[in-house]
Amino acid sequence: MKVIIIGGTGTIGAAVAGELSSRHEVLIASRTRGDIICDIASEESIRHLFEKAGKFDAVVVTAGDVHFENFSKMTDAKYRIGLNHKLMGQVNVVLIGREYIQPNGSFTLTSGILSHDPVRAGSSASMVNGAVDSFVKAAAIELTQGIRVNAVSPTLVAESAAAFGSYFYGFEAIPVQQIALSYVKSVEGLQTGQIYQAGY
Amino acid sequence: MKVIIIGGTGTIGAAVAGELSSRHEVLIASRTRGDIICDIASEESIRHLFEKAGKFDAVVVTAGDVHFENFSKMTDAKYRIGLNHKLMGQVNVVLIGREYIQPNGSFTLTSGILSHDPVRAGSSASMVNGAVDSFVKAAAIELTQGIRVNAVSPTLVAESAAAFGSYFYGFEAIPVQQIALSYVKSVEGLQTGQIYQAGY
Repeated sequence: MKVIIIGGTGTIGAAVAGELSSRHEVLIASRTRGDIICDIASEESIRHLFEKAGKFDAVVVTAGDVHFENFSKMTDAKYRIGLNHKLMGQVNVVLIGREYIQPNGSFTLTSGILSHDPVRAGSSASMVNGAVDSFVKAAAIELTQGIRVNAVSPTLVAESAAAFGSYFYGFEAIPVQQIALSYVKSVEGLQTGQIYQAGY
Repeated sequence: MKVIIIGGTGTIGAAVAGELSSRHEVLIASRTRGDIICDIASEESIRHLFEKAGKFDAVVVTAGDVHFENFSKMTDAKYRIGLNHKLMGQVNVVLIGREYIQPNGSFTLTSGILSHDPVRAGSSASMVNGAVDSFVKAAAIELTQGIRVNAVSPTLVAESAAAFGSYFYGFEAIPVQQIALSYVKSVEGLQTGQIYQAGY
């Protein structure tokens, strides 16, 4: 298989690449480096990625910004960051990618545990993760040609705990290699419309 | 209590008004008629509503557009309809309304069964409903002064089956009066962060 990992230079994406690269051809995309530059906030940039990638069988997205801030300070504009990037960025990867992906290919998106286990300052992440999960369940039943779509919903990743752990007190930090297995299950398995709870 | 029902002229909103008006003062808001005109897609219009309403204790939203279309024809722009209206419209009712609502007041939003039980052409509704549900869970834990927020997640309403039933074959159509009870439970109860599954 040829697998494109958007966000493949990040903590989770690099671990997924590590798991998949022994068996598959892996193409790394990210905003700043990797095999192809791609910012999922731009439909044009997503289309450029797929035009350059050649034939491929799977896309994994481990990219997506959301804004963390106490709810009392959240505004329409601050919610739009996550809606434009982590939500519609990933949705547009599916909408555009389905024009290019091989039959029986798969999309694996990233949501997160905050969809149903909220924390202080995380209301935008919760919103976006819930939206991604429900989008995946709905899109899966309408995709054709055997194309699949799943989401991985990670908990706190140990390797990111220095950066994000203060939002997640009381959450068990799980090694990224364990989190990466859920992505492997999605890419190399046959299920669709699933939300893989990773590390919890 | 004084209760504002945004979308109070619609099928569900009118039923909720019917349930609540024997015990409470009910103010009806909608895009075209009622006591106050309000389009939740506009932050200015929401602020106008709360400025005109005077002191109030509860807000129910039974309004919110989403675009239904087969997934193969869905585009970024078509998803934005639901994100701008049913999602951010309701979120902005909470963000702006919290400046005006009385302590111990409540917000009751509307999501829907498609968050987890998807149908053909419903991927935008699924996305938005999932986002509303997760937003409610997160916002509830950060609201202060005893202010509560819940969502009601209705299934197919019998009185709307002529308009929407063709999307919902195999779903039991539930009388709107039964659906309205979940809104009453949210407004007159004390729970917060709940997703009330209405009619299923």
